Parts: sequence; C-alpha cells; structure tokens
Amino acid sequence: MSVTARQNLSTLTADELAAERDRLADEHAELAARGLSLNLARGRPSTAQVDLADELLALPGRGAGVGPDGTDYRNYYGGLQGLAGLRELFAPVLGVPADQLIAEGNSSLALMYQCVVEALLHGVPGGPGPWRDVERVAFIAAVPGYDRHFAICQELGIELLSVPMTDAGPDVDAVRELVADPRVKGMWCVPTYSNPTGVTYAEDVVQALAGMPTGAPDFRLWWDNAYAVHHLTEFETPSSDILAITAAAGHPDRAFVFGSTSKITTAGAGVAFLGSSTANVDWYLRHMRFRTIGPDKLNQLRHLRFLGDLDGVRAHMAKHRELIAPKFALVDRVLREELAGTAAAEWSTPKGGYFINVDVLGGCAARVVELAGKAGIALAPAGASFPYGHDPADRNFRIAATYPPLEELDAAMHGLTLCVRLAEAEQRLPSHD
Amino acid sequence: MSVTARQNLSTLTADELAAERDRLADEHAELAARGLSLNLARGRPSTAQVDLADELLALPGRGAGVGPDGTDYRNYYGGLQGLAGLRELFAPVLGVPADQLIAEGNSSLALMYQCVVEALLHGVPGGPGPWRDVERVAFIAAVPGYDRHFAICQELGIELLSVPMTDAGPDVDAVRELVADPRVKGMWCVPTYSNPTGVTYAEDVVQALAGMPTGAPDFRLWWDNAYAVHHLTEFETPSSDILAITAAAGHPDRAFVFGSTSKITTAGAGVAFLGSSTANVDWYLRHMRFRTIGPDKLNQLRHLRFLGDLDGVRAHMAKHRELIAPKFALVDRVLREELAGTAAAEWSTPKGGYFINVDVLGGCAARVVELAGKAGIALAPAGASFPYGHDPADRNFRIAATYPPLEELDAAMHGLTLCVRLAEAEQRLPSHD
Repeated sequence: MSVTARQNLSTLTADELAAERDRLADEHAELAARGLSLNLARGRPSTAQVDLADELLALPGRGAGVGPDGTDYRNYYGGLQGLAGLRELFAPVLGVPADQLIAEGNSSLALMYQCVVEALLHGVPGGPGPWRDVERVAFIAAVPGYDRHFAICQELGIELLSVPMTDAGPDVDAVRELVADPRVKGMWCVPTYSNPTGVTYAEDVVQALAGMPTGAPDFRLWWDNAYAVHHLTEFETPSSDILAITAAAGHPDRAFVFGSTSKITTAGAGVAFLGSSTANVDWYLRHMRFRTIGPDKLNQLRHLRFLGDLDGVRAHMAKHRELIAPKFALVDRVLREELAGTAAAEWSTPKGGYFINVDVLGGCAARVVELAGKAGIALAPAGASFPYGHDPADRNFRIAATYPPLEELDAAMHGLTLCVRLAEAEQRLPSHD
Repeated sequence: MSVTARQNLSTLTADELAAERDRLADEHAELAARGLSLNLARGRPSTAQVDLADELLALPGRGAGVGPDGTDYRNYYGGLQGLAGLRELFAPVLGVPADQLIAEGNSSLALMYQCVVEALLHGVPGGPGPWRDVERVAFIAAVPGYDRHFAICQELGIELLSVPMTDAGPDVDAVRELVADPRVKGMWCVPTYSNPTGVTYAEDVVQALAGMPTGAPDFRLWWDNAYAVHHLTEFETPSSDILAITAAAGHPDRAFVFGSTSKITTAGAGVAFLGSSTANVDWYLRHMRFRTIGPDKLNQLRHLRFLGDLDGVRAHMAKHRELIAPKFALVDRVLREELAGTAAAEWSTPKGGYFINVDVLGGCAARVVELAGKAGIALAPAGASFPYGHDPADRNFRIAATYPPLEELDAAMHGLTLCVRLAEAEQRLPSHD
C-alpha cells in the first residue's frame, strides 16, 4: 500500500480529505468488483484445527463402550453428572474439583441458559425465591462482550446493564455501584482471554468481584472460562481459582463456572462443563434429573480416550496455537502496516482466545461493517458485542481470524483496513455533519 | 410350583387362607435368603441389544466428518434443525415431513421439557401469552402412564389431572370434559405401545383428541411416539398420522411429536426428534437459537451412516425383536402358570414397547413391590405410573423385561409371582381389615 494510505486524516484540509475519500472510494469499488467471499464474523476453528481431532470420529471404537470403571456407557448408565474420568481430566483446566463438576451436552451456552432458566423458575441456593418474581431482574454486562451471553438475557426478559471493560477486566467501581441494587442478580464474565477484547481479568478485579457486597443475597457470576487453555503465546496465562476465591471471600456459591471442548476438539460436537460449589451443583442436578436421564456419555468417553490426560490437552492446544498464532500475527501486522499512526483505529493484541477487538473513530463502526460487507468481507453486525446490539459510540467491531486460510485472511485484512480508512475519511469530511 | 400355588384364594376359608399365607411367607423367606439382585424396574435395553449398535462406536470414522451435502460437521455448521439426511430418514418413522422435523440432542425427554418451558415463558403460537400467567395451568395424564412425563409437570408447577386409560387409549369422554377448562393446556400421550399398558390408541380416539373443542385456544398434545418401531410381533402396528389428522380436524398446531433412537441404537447416546406444524417448528427454532449454536451433528451423522435408510431401521428393530420377544413371552408364561385363574392379577400382553402392565388386587401393589424388594427383585415404586406417585387403588405396577438375561428374568418372575400371591393372601385375611 502507498504511503498516503497511512496518512493521519485529521491533519488534512477539507479538499485533501475529499480527494482522499474519493481515492479510497475508488479503491473500495475495485475491491467490491472482485466479488470476494471472506468471513471474519464468527469464532470458528479452521478445517486444519478440527482435523487435529479427526481421530475422535472413530472413537471410542467397537467393543470399547465400557468405561474405566466397568460402566457400559452404551446404556442408561453413568449418572447425571457425566463421566467421572472426563470430569477428573477437566477439573484442573477449570479449577473445579471433579466432584463439583458436571459434564453435560455439547454446548456450554446451553448450560448457561439452563442456569438462568432454573434461577428464574426456582431460584438459586441462598436466595429468597424464583427470580421471575423479581421486578425488572437485571444482569451486568461488561462491554464489549459476548453477544450470545447478552442474547440469553434478552430472550428471557432480563435487563442488561453495561459497565466498561478495562485492560484489567470489568470496571469494578461501576460494577459495585450496580450490584447494590437487589434486582441485579447476575453478571456475565469471560475471565481469561475475554471475548472480544482478549483481556484476562487481573487478580484484584477477580477478588473484588468475588468479595463485593451485593444487594441480592443470591447474586451469581456466570463465569464463562471458554478460553482457559486457548493460549496464543508460550506464556500460558493461568485462570483465576474463582471457586476458592469466592469461598475465601465468604461467598462460596457466587460463581457458576462454564467451559467446553468446542474449541479444543470439535465445534458443536464436544462436551460442556458446569462447575460450582457443592450447594449449586446439588441444586443443578436436583433439577436436571427432571429433564434428562443423563448426558451423552459415549461422547464423553470418546473425549477421554482422545485427550487422555492434562498433558494431552496441553499438547493438543499447542497444535492449535501453531495453526492460529500466525493468523493473529498477520492481522496485527496488516493493522499496523495500514493503520498505525493514522488515528483511525486502536486494536487489541491478545495473548489467547479467538478475537481481535477493534475500536475505530466514533460513528464509523457500522459504516465499516457495511463497506466490508459490500466488498465481500463478512463481519458480525456493528454493535454485536453490546447489549441490545447497540454500541453507543458506534466504534467497536471484532475480527475473528481463526477460520480463513492465511492468504484469504491477508486479503480480508487489506480489504478491511481499506474500509476503515474510507469510513474515517467520510466521517471527517465537514459535509458529513 | 405346586397346584395349591395357583389356588383362587377368594374361595378359601379364613383358616385355609392363614395356612396359605404362612406357607407363602416361608417360601418368600427362603427366596429372600438367596440374596438375589434382579432388576425389573426401568425400561433399559439389554447388553445384547446395545451390542447390536456397537458399530456406531467407530463411526463416522476418520476422514468422514463431512456430510452428504459437503458440510463439515466437525465445525459449527449444519444449522439448528439438525442433519437433513437423518431428518429425512426419520420423517416416515414419526410421520412428520423432514422439514418439520428437528433432530436435536440425546434425550426426547429434554425436548418435551423444553417445549413446556418455552410455553411457560413465552407461550405457543395461537395462544394468548405465556402459560406462566395462567392460574393453575394443568395437563391431562392418562393413567397408568409414564412417570417421567408427570415429573416434568410436577417440576414446573403444572397440575396433573388423571383420566383412565382404556384398551383403546385415553378415556375420551373424560378428556373432553377436562379440556373444556381453559387452564388445561396440554396432555401427555404415548400413542403407540403406550408406557406401561402397551395400548396403541385406536383411530377414533386419535380423531377425538385431534378434533375435540378445547377451552384453551393453545391446547397441545405432547405426542411421545417413543415406541413407533418397537414391535414385538411380526405385525408392525402403524402409528397414527397425527399431524395430518390434527390439520384435517382444523387444529394444525395441536401436536408436538417426539421420538428418539434411545431404544434403537444406544440408550442415552442417541438422537432425539421433535416434529410439528411449521408454525410450531418455527417457534421452537426461534427460541432454540438463544440456547445453542446447534445440536451434535457428528452424532447425527454417525446415526445416519449406521442406520442408512428406513429398511435399515426396520432390519435393526427386527434384531431387537428377536432378542426381547422371548423375554415378553417368558413373562407372560410365568404369569399364566403362576397366576392364571387365581383372581390375584391381570396383566397386559403387549405387541410392542417395553413394558408389561400388571394390576393386582386393590391395596396390594405397594406390598408386592416391598416384598419383591426384600427378595432382591427391584421394581419401580408402586404408584410410579400415576401423577404424584399415587395409585388410588394401590393395584398397579409394571414389569420391565428387556434388561435381564432370560434365566435371571425367569428367576425374577417366579419370585415376583410369589410376592403377588403372598400379598394377596395377606390382604384377604380377615385380620387384615
């Protein structure tokens, strides 16, 4: 790209800006004419990544449906809580004792949803009753955050209250203020390599969330540790030991911990986990038995045979890192080459997880997404990372870099940065106001 | 067994009865001393039955995670509704067009639960609103019926209203009377080889349920066709085409149809189905997308590869029949040998499904279950087939014959019939009153 492409548009005269806008618009028209079909929208593993677990597709194997303890998992056996061996394997991953961990179906989102539904219908341990009896029950959302978390609340009639995400996690002062209100019953958290910012909550933030007084005696953290082992560098950021920390802070039942193998083995055909205090786990199982005889334990056995042990998980995740770290590096490189010094955007350089967070000039994000779409580059809708899909500053979007092959990602990123610069030029033009 | 064992106790004098009671009690004590551990409690397939699907455990196989249409089912692909090929295969099994069928997780019970939850929280198409806003919302239960159906209502605060089960299905007059009340929103049905009576609903009963006027405009049948292909004889009882019948009767949205492969392939690791009208399916999917990205499509692909087509399902079910029909025959033979002509019990001779229904002398069922338990023969709790676990006449229990090997089943049935006769003798003794 030319040097002018990296100009700081804020330094230009109106005429220069108009000329630059026209030049970028022409470039965009050429791009659009190429008829690309590139996707940076959702956090999907690539084909090479799911290939890493292809062995799963032939497991546990004929004659191997019986578990280590002699249980025949081809029948209605093994209990509600899921395969003990697999729970033992994931206990250290999620920082939850195996007997306080439930291995259920293929979706951690479904477990989060179910915990909200059970809380609405029945209430949770230590609470005064069903949450549906609370007028205007509300959850806290650190923004930007994970759209599917917020959508559960919208689906179930729970108000979402935003707090800013900082480089150390949710803004604790803002959280403290909100949780004083007893109608605030929950908070969404992605504590490690957060979606989409990549931020890992600092220890003092975790301590504050664990220990803060809350108006509701039954306030809960929905602690979605989706990326616990999804490191992008050799430094493996440790996850906070949230159950120990909440217990030490005098709130042993405060956190529901979630995780899954969706981005470890196969996406959508993995195993999801829920861990919590004994009281919360007993509560969940007590209700779970009314809806099912038990989870798919053959799939759990399949995963146990494939991953083996904690070293097996770590070795497997290292293979993922080899595949996706170059993609994150490419995204960062193109962003730097095309946007560094321009004032057009800031972006994250995550050490794990699945996303690069981008903040552009205020009022430009929706236009960037629109321009990218016209150029055949799919992004999540602007505002997707905010409750109700509304980004008040219209400046945020995220890049999901894992799925496309490197050459496609390169093309998509050059196209995307062009859209960012064009949107910026349009926005800065006086006629825009 | 001796001829006296088959005496009709109602013809004995009090002294003869006391002597017989003592003789049977001695026999029971001897049995209890043998320390048996036999189980007739739950409808579980046997190990030989799940062996029939052992090939599943190595499917779809390495390099075979891509579906017939090119979709990579190892990734987040394939949509909410489940694998099209598997839906096409089960469409004729359940009498639901493939595009009105959803293939979801491993448990049809979970789908039934979810439909109730969605109805409570959001209401159903054509209704005035969420069912939780209805005072004392109620469902109809034909008794004896399936305990897990009733438990869902108890868990979710829905009142259960009983109607008698006849040889042709639920007592339609009793149903008509109850559904006039607008708070009656649903009814549990197992239309083919019903649990536990084995009754298949007669066509006029189905017509009546499909066409009857209801006080609630959004009344629904929870049509659990769990045993659609689970024939015990060469005559394959056809399932009613419930969606066509309700549509023809002017109530196209009246039925939610459920089924699963739990007792076709592997129990607890199969695929469950929900079928209904387009409006109901759209409604379900519209809410489903908030709780999950999609079902485990690899397991669906696995099932499609294993079963192949409808002939594959029929051939597979014939193998099940070969294994379990002799067990049902054995149960019937021992019941006839030990109880025919005694007035102690009546029982069903089902042509499909998983259970033999037994009705003993009133006031005896709980005692039979207790005596059997002391003799090491596990049965479901007396009254389990009735709402709230309460059999008003205390006369019903069911026999689940599929799991034990034939020799164990023989021992269990001889022990059980002894318990029936002992309970009868105790009950008929004048001192009992």
